Amino acid sequence: MKCTVVAFCFLIFGCLRVLGQNPSFNGRWILIEDFFGTPRYLRLQVEQNGSKISGELNGDKLDGAAEGRNIHFVAHTEQKDTFELQGSLEGGILKATMINTEASNPDHPYRFSITGQPAPPLEHGTPQHHEFKPTVFYRQFSALNKPVLTLAPGDTIHTTTVDAGGTDENGVRRVAGGNPETGPFYIKGAMPGDVLVIHINKLRLNRDWAISDDFLVDRSVTPDLAVKMKGVGKDIKWHLDLANATAFPSKPGDHLTRFRVPLKPMLGCIAAAPSISQAPPPTGDSGFFGGNMDFNEVSEGATVYLRVSNPGALLYFGDGHAAQGDGELNGNALETSMDVELAVDVIPNKRIADPRIETPDAIITMGLDGSLDAAFEEATGDMAAWLAEDYKLTPSEVAQVIGAGAEYKVSEVADRNAGVVLKLNKKYLETLASGTK
Amino acid sequence: MKCTVVAFCFLIFGCLRVLGQNPSFNGRWILIEDFFGTPRYLRLQVEQNGSKISGELNGDKLDGAAEGRNIHFVAHTEQKDTFELQGSLEGGILKATMINTEASNPDHPYRFSITGQPAPPLEHGTPQHHEFKPTVFYRQFSALNKPVLTLAPGDTIHTTTVDAGGTDENGVRRVAGGNPETGPFYIKGAMPGDVLVIHINKLRLNRDWAISDDFLVDRSVTPDLAVKMKGVGKDIKWHLDLANATAFPSKPGDHLTRFRVPLKPMLGCIAAAPSISQAPPPTGDSGFFGGNMDFNEVSEGATVYLRVSNPGALLYFGDGHAAQGDGELNGNALETSMDVELAVDVIPNKRIADPRIETPDAIITMGLDGSLDAAFEEATGDMAAWLAEDYKLTPSEVAQVIGAGAEYKVSEVADRNAGVVLKLNKKYLETLASGTK
Amino acid sequence: MKCTVVAFCFLIFGCLRVLGQNPSFNGRWILIEDFFGTPRYLRLQVEQNGSKISGELNGDKLDGAAEGRNIHFVAHTEQKDTFELQGSLEGGILKATMINTEASNPDHPYRFSITGQPAPPLEHGTPQHHEFKPTVFYRQFSALNKPVLTLAPGDTIHTTTVDAGGTDENGVRRVAGGNPETGPFYIKGAMPGDVLVIHINKLRLNRDWAISDDFLVDRSVTPDLAVKMKGVGKDIKWHLDLANATAFPSKPGDHLTRFRVPLKPMLGCIAAAPSISQAPPPTGDSGFFGGNMDFNEVSEGATVYLRVSNPGALLYFGDGHAAQGDGELNGNALETSMDVELAVDVIPNKRIADPRIETPDAIITMGLDGSLDAAFEEATGDMAAWLAEDYKLTPSEVAQVIGAGAEYKVSEVADRNAGVVLKLNKKYLETLASGTK
Amino acid sequence: MKCTVVAFCFLIFGCLRVLGQNPSFNGRWILIEDFFGTPRYLRLQVEQNGSKISGELNGDKLDGAAEGRNIHFVAHTEQKDTFELQGSLEGGILKATMINTEASNPDHPYRFSITGQPAPPLEHGTPQHHEFKPTVFYRQFSALNKPVLTLAPGDTIHTTTVDAGGTDENGVRRVAGGNPETGPFYIKGAMPGDVLVIHINKLRLNRDWAISDDFLVDRSVTPDLAVKMKGVGKDIKWHLDLANATAFPSKPGDHLTRFRVPLKPMLGCIAAAPSISQAPPPTGDSGFFGGNMDFNEVSEGATVYLRVSNPGALLYFGDGHAAQGDGELNGNALETSMDVELAVDVIPNKRIADPRIETPDAIITMGLDGSLDAAFEEATGDMAAWLAEDYKLTPSEVAQVIGAGAEYKVSEVADRNAGVVLKLNKKYLETLASGTK
Repeated sequence: MKCTVVAFCFLIFGCLRVLGQNPSFNGRWILIEDFFGTPRYLRLQVEQNGSKISGELNGDKLDGAAEGRNIHFVAHTEQKDTFELQGSLEGGILKATMINTEASNPDHPYRFSITGQPAPPLEHGTPQHHEFKPTVFYRQFSALNKPVLTLAPGDTIHTTTVDAGGTDENGVRRVAGGNPETGPFYIKGAMPGDVLVIHINKLRLNRDWAISDDFLVDRSVTPDLAVKMKGVGKDIKWHLDLANATAFPSKPGDHLTRFRVPLKPMLGCIAAAPSISQAPPPTGDSGFFGGNMDFNEVSEGATVYLRVSNPGALLYFGDGHAAQGDGELNGNALETSMDVELAVDVIPNKRIADPRIETPDAIITMGLDGSLDAAFEEATGDMAAWLAEDYKLTPSEVAQVIGAGAEYKVSEVADRNAGVVLKLNKKYLETLASGTK
Repeated sequence: MKCTVVAFCFLIFGCLRVLGQNPSFNGRWILIEDFFGTPRYLRLQVEQNGSKISGELNGDKLDGAAEGRNIHFVAHTEQKDTFELQGSLEGGILKATMINTEASNPDHPYRFSITGQPAPPLEHGTPQHHEFKPTVFYRQFSALNKPVLTLAPGDTIHTTTVDAGGTDENGVRRVAGGNPETGPFYIKGAMPGDVLVIHINKLRLNRDWAISDDFLVDRSVTPDLAVKMKGVGKDIKWHLDLANATAFPSKPGDHLTRFRVPLKPMLGCIAAAPSISQAPPPTGDSGFFGGNMDFNEVSEGATVYLRVSNPGALLYFGDGHAAQGDGELNGNALETSMDVELAVDVIPNKRIADPRIETPDAIITMGLDGSLDAAFEEATGDMAAWLAEDYKLTPSEVAQVIGAGAEYKVSEVADRNAGVVLKLNKKYLETLASGTK
Repeated sequence: MKCTVVAFCFLIFGCLRVLGQNPSFNGRWILIEDFFGTPRYLRLQVEQNGSKISGELNGDKLDGAAEGRNIHFVAHTEQKDTFELQGSLEGGILKATMINTEASNPDHPYRFSITGQPAPPLEHGTPQHHEFKPTVFYRQFSALNKPVLTLAPGDTIHTTTVDAGGTDENGVRRVAGGNPETGPFYIKGAMPGDVLVIHINKLRLNRDWAISDDFLVDRSVTPDLAVKMKGVGKDIKWHLDLANATAFPSKPGDHLTRFRVPLKPMLGCIAAAPSISQAPPPTGDSGFFGGNMDFNEVSEGATVYLRVSNPGALLYFGDGHAAQGDGELNGNALETSMDVELAVDVIPNKRIADPRIETPDAIITMGLDGSLDAAFEEATGDMAAWLAEDYKLTPSEVAQVIGAGAEYKVSEVADRNAGVVLKLNKKYLETLASGTK
Repeated sequence: MKCTVVAFCFLIFGCLRVLGQNPSFNGRWILIEDFFGTPRYLRLQVEQNGSKISGELNGDKLDGAAEGRNIHFVAHTEQKDTFELQGSLEGGILKATMINTEASNPDHPYRFSITGQPAPPLEHGTPQHHEFKPTVFYRQFSALNKPVLTLAPGDTIHTTTVDAGGTDENGVRRVAGGNPETGPFYIKGAMPGDVLVIHINKLRLNRDWAISDDFLVDRSVTPDLAVKMKGVGKDIKWHLDLANATAFPSKPGDHLTRFRVPLKPMLGCIAAAPSISQAPPPTGDSGFFGGNMDFNEVSEGATVYLRVSNPGALLYFGDGHAAQGDGELNGNALETSMDVELAVDVIPNKRIADPRIETPDAIITMGLDGSLDAAFEEATGDMAAWLAEDYKLTPSEVAQVIGAGAEYKVSEVADRNAGVVLKLNKKYLETLASGTK
C-alpha cells in the first residue's frame, strides 16, 4: 500500500523545486516514513547556514550538517529518544534512513526508510476564485481519496454539496447516503502541524425542500419518553420558503399547520482528513479532524479551524442543513443540498487539539466524545488551552474568565460522539490585557 | 413528630370556616394521613350534591355520601386498589379512617388515621405588597421550618437574601454558609397537586462586592487540565461597579487588569419545599422542587414554575449571583447579597415533573440528574410533556418541534445534580395552531 | 437548635471525668463550635507537659499553655490561617472562644464560642455481647436521632432489621417504607477523624418470604428495552426456602416454575451518620457515610469501614436482601427482615474518603456518584489511595497493581448514586513487599 | 470501487454450482446491490416449487415465479415498502434489477442493479484442522482485505498472533502497532444474517515477556488522582514465568519485588468484519462486530458469538494479553504474542445485536458504547433479548431473572467504547422451564 500512496502523493504535490549542484535544504519538508508497513508523515523544518543544519523534526530541535546532496542530523525528544537521519537528494527527492534509538532501549535502534521532498511554500499570492462542480462524493474522510482540486491559501472555492442522503439540488440521487462529501480539496503548503482555516463566505439554499423525520435519537429519551414516542420515525418532507426564509412541513399535522422555522443554513460536516496512517473515519463520525459536527453555528460568516494531519490538509465538507435545533435530535435535521463559498487559509506551525470555531461574536471550542459529560470536559480543556496560548492567561485567570463568561451549548447528540461547545463572547476577550494575543 | 406537625399546620392555616348544623364538604381539603408513623398529604376535592359525594382523591374519582357531620366515600385507582374513607367533622376538623385495599393483596387491607380540614380558598383578592426583613436563614428546604410570612396568590414580596456564605448586604456574617435561604413563605391556598408560580419582578444588587474563586469544579476538568490547574483554588474578591453594571476582580492578575464582566443578577436557589414525608434536602441540592439550580436565566423578568408538595407551597429563595457563566464552573459564582421582589401565584390542579422557567423570549425545561447525559434526557422529556399537555402536540409533532427548535444549554455542573435546560423560543410557540394552549 | 443538640450530646456521652484542682488537658476532646448557628465538631488532641500544650487541632499542629483550669493555644493551617483557642474548664466542661484569622483576610478575624469535654477513651475492655430489640426505625441517617444503645469497641450486637417496606419478621408493618433502619448505635470513643469498623458476624433470614418486583430501573434500560418492558412493575412475592437455601417466586410465570435463586443474605444499608452540621440524608441515599449501598458482598463474613463524622459514630443498618443480583435492577431486591450480629471496632486517627469493604478474599473500594462513569473513577481513586497509604506504593506501582489485578463490578444502579466497586484479590496483596502495610 | 469488490468476492466464493437448462433457484443467495455506488449485501432465501417462488428477502416474505433462467418476485416490508426483483441467470450469475417503491413516496421508485450467485451450502463435512503461519497483519477490520484462508464450519485453525505493537514470538517487529490482526479467515457458507461461532480451543503463550505501562487511562482517574499520577506513563516490561504461570515486572519498584500476577491468556480482539458498505473500523475499535473488546474472559474455553455482516464472515483476531485486570486500565495489558487454536461454526438465520460470550459457567452479553452508563444499558438490553428469544421469557420474567441473577463487570475502559458485561450463571438457566431453549 505504501508505494502507491507515496507515488500518488508526490504526483499531486505539483512541480518540484529545481535544485542546483549544491542544493539548499532550507525550508519545510514533507517526509514520509515507512513505519513497519504504514506510511507516516514527519514534520521537518530545516535552516541551513553553510554546511550547518539546524531546525526541528516533529517539534524537536535538530542539529547536523549538509554537504552537497547529502544531509545528516540528529534530533532529541524530551524523553531523550534520538532520531538520526542520513540521506541524500536524488532528482529532487530526498532518500534517507532514519534511526530511532529509544532511551529505554538503547541497544535496539529501529531503522526506517524515508522519502521526502520540499514542501511547497506557504505563500499568499493573488487570491484565486475557483468554481467547482463536484462529480464524486466520498463517504469517508480519507487521506487516500484523490484531491478534486488544489487551492492556495487565500483562495475561495464556490461549489455545491448534496444532502445527507446523496441527493443534489435537482433532486437527483447521486450517491448512497451517510453524508457524502464534496472534496477533498488540497490546500497548497498546508502541512501536518499547521492549522487549516476555513471561512464560510456564503452558504445558501439551492432547492426548496428538505427531508427530516419525526424520530428522537436514543441519547435524548428517557425510558418514559421512549414509551410515549413508540411508533414515530417516519420521514418528514419540509418545504423551504426561500423568499420568506422559513421552513415548514409539507404535510403538517393538525397542530403544525402554522408552524414555521426560520431558515439558518449550516454545514453538518467539515473536515481535514486524519492522517494517512490512521483508518479513515466514516462521514457520520467526528473528532479532532472535525467531520460530522452538526453544530448549527457553522453557518455563513463563521470560521472553522482544523488541525492539519496530511500534506495539503485534504478538506471535505457536506451535510447541509436548512435549519437545525441544537443537537440534531431527529438524527436528521432539515437535510438539503447547498450552495457553498469558502475561503481557505493556513496558520503554519500551530497545533490545536480539537476543532475551533469563530463567529462574529464569539470564540468557540468543541468537545466531541462518547458522552455529554466527557464532551463537556473536553470543550473546557480546549478553551483553557486557547486562553493560555493565545491570551497568555495563568491557570487562575483561565478559571476566572471561564467561570464568569462561559456559555455551554449541546451541539450534537445524534451521532457516535456527543458534542458540547463552549462559547466565549468576544466582549470578554476585548477586556483581556492588550497585546497579549 | 406527626402530632406536632399537624398541630403546627393547623395553626397556620388561619381561621376555619364556621360550620353549621349540616356542614358542606364541598371544596378542596388538606388531609394528613398517619402513614406508619410518617405524615403524608392526600389531595381531596369534594363535590357535594345533597347527600351525594363525588370528586377526586389524589386524582382518582371517588363516590360516596354525606350525612350531617359524617362522610363516607370510596376511590379506585387505575390498578384497582381502593381507598375507603369514613369520617366525621369535629370542631371543624375531619377525623377519619382510611382503608386501603390493594388489588394484589385483597385480604390484608391497611387502615390509617386521617386528620383534615378545608383548604383555604385559592382566591385572588386585591394583591398585597409585603415588605419583609429576614432574621432567620435556613439551610435545608424543609417542610418543618416555620413559615416566616403568609402570602396570597397575586401578592408581591420585597425582601433581601444573604450571599451563599451567609453574609448580608452590610457585610455581616449572619449564618453558616451553604446557600442559607430567605423564607419559607406560606402561599395561601396552594396545595399538593398545584403549581407555584414565582415571577421575579426585581432582582437588584445591594452591595458592591462579591466573592468567587479560581477553582474549576471536577465535572469540568479532563485529567490533563487537572494537572495544569494544580494549585488553584483561592478566593477571588470582585468589585461590583453598580453604576456601570460591570464586575471585575478587586486584585486582578496581570492579564485581567481590564477584564470586565457585565452584571446580570440571578437567584441560584428558588424552591417549594418537598413533601413533609421526605427528608429535607440541603440548600446545596436541587430536584423536582427546584432548589439550588444555579441557572443564570433565573433573573429579573423570569417566571419559575414549581411543583407544590405541601400545603402553602413553602417558598424559599437565596444564593444570589451578581453574574455567572453557564454551569457555575468555579463552584461559586459572583456570590453576593440581593434585593428581591417576587410576585407569587398558584395554578391549581396542575402537575409538573420538574421546574419550568419562562422568560420574555422562551419557555424552558430543566433536567437535573447525576450526569449531563441524564439531565439532557430529562429536559427533553419535560419539554415533550409540556408540548403535549399545553399545546396538544402528538408525539410526531413534538419530535418535529423539538428537532427544529430546541436550544440546549448546560445550566449547572457545580453541584450534586448536573443541569441541562431546553429552551424553546416563543416564536415557535406562536406558530403552533391557535387556541390549543 | 444548637443548645438542644449540645445538651443532648453531653447527656449521651456518659459520665465525665472527675477533674481535680489542676486538671490535665491530655487526650482527645470533643469540641462543638457554634459556627454561625450551626454546630460543628472539631478534632482536638492535646499533649500536656507541665504547662506546655502541644497536639493537633483538626490535623494541624498546635502550641500553647495551660494554667490551672485555663488553656490557650494556636494552630496554623497549611494556608497560614490561624485558630486560636482561649478557654477554661467549668464543671468538667470546657468553655472557650475560638478566633479564626484567615491569611487572606487578616484584619477581620472570626470569633466562635466552643463547648467541649474530654472524649471517652478508646479502650478495648472485655468485649460485651448485646441483645437488642428495636422499637423505633429511622428513615434518615441523622446525627440528631437519639442513640438506642451504646457499644464499646470490640463489642458485638445481636438484633433484627425490618424489610425495606417496614415490615418485620412477623409480617407486621412497623413503619413507613424506604429502608427504615435499626439504630443508631453509639460507639464509645469513636470521634470524627476515626474509622468505624463493622464486621458482620452473622446475617440470617428470619422469615420465609420476601417482596420484590418485576420492574427494571431507568438506568438499566435502553429506549428499545423500555418499550418492550412497557406495563411491567408489579410486586413479586418470593418464597424463601431456608432449608435448601434457595428462593423462588411464589406464583411463578410459566417459564419460571423451576427457577431457583441461591440465598445470599446481605445488608442493603449500613452507615455512620454524616456530621451534625450537614442535612441528614434519607435512608435511600448513599455516600461517604455508607448508607444505601446495596452491594451484595456486604454479607456474613464481610467487614465494612466507614468514616466517623460524629462522636459515637452513630451506626445505622437495615434493608436486608435475601438475594440480589448486581446493581439491584428491580429497584427492590428480595426484600426481607433479617437477624443480624455485628462486631464493632474503631481505628483512631485514620481518614478514608469513601466506604471500604473487606471480604475473606478481597479488599474493595466503592465509588458512589451520579453516573457509573463517575463512580468508576471514584472507586479507582479510592483504591489508589488505599494502596499508597497502607502499602506505600508509588504512583507507578499503583498503576501496575490496579492494571493487572483490578476487578470492577457494578454494585448499584437503583438509587440516586450509582455504585461501582473495585476489588483487589488478597493474593495480590500478599505479594506486595512485606512489612509495608 | 464496486466492480473490483464484486469481482473479488466472486473469486473467493469458490466454484459455482453447475446449472442445467432449467436451473433451480432453491436455497440461499448472495446478492450484491449497487446502491448508488456502494455495494450492499441482500439476504435472499428462495423456495422454488415448480414455477412458484417463495421465501424471504432480508427477512421479509416474498412471492414470485421462475421460468427457465428468469426469476421475478416481490417482497413487502412491514412499512409497506416493496422490493421487486426481475432477473435471469447468465453463466451461473444472477443479473437482476431491483425496484424499490417506498410507501411514502410511491411515485418515485428507485432502481438498482443486482448481481448474485448461490451461496455455498452451510454444511458440516469432516472437520479439517488447518495450520496457518501469518505473513500479513491488518490494522482495520475491513471487508476489503483478501482472506488468508478459507475454513468450513466445524474446522479448527491453529496459528499465531503478534502483540499489540506488532512484535511476534521471536521478538521481531512485523508491522506497525495498534493491534495488528491475524486473518481475515473466510468461513464457507456464512452469510449476512447468520451468527459466527468461535470457540477458543487453546490460547497459549509463546514467548516469555510482555510489554505494558504504568499509565492510568483518562476514564479511570478523578482530577485528584490525575494530579497524583502526574509523570507516570513509561513502558513496563514483564517477565512471563510460563513454568509457574505467573508474571512479574522485569525491573520492579521497591514495593513490587515479590509482586506476582497469575497468567490468564486472553484475546483482546476478535471480530467478524462489518459490512463492506461501511467504513472499516480501526483495530483499536469495537462494536457489534466485536473487535477490540479487551474482555479478560475471552480466554481458553470461551465461545464468542458474532454477527455475520459479509459472506464468509471474515474473522480477525489478535491483541493477546498474558494477563489483564478488568477494563485494561493501563491502556495496555501484558501485551504479548500468542499461540491460538480456534474452532469455527455458523448458526444460520440468527440475528444478534452485539457480541455474546459463553464460558463454561455463564452466558454473557456485552454493551459497548461511549460511556459506562450507556454500555450498561446495552448489556442489559442484549441479555433481555437473549432470554426472550432463546428461553421464551416474558418481560416480567426477564426482569425477575436479571434482577436476581445478574453479575455486571466493567470489561473495557481503555478504548473509544467503554464495555460492560452482564454475566448470567448457567445455574440460573438450568432452572428455567425445560425445553424452552
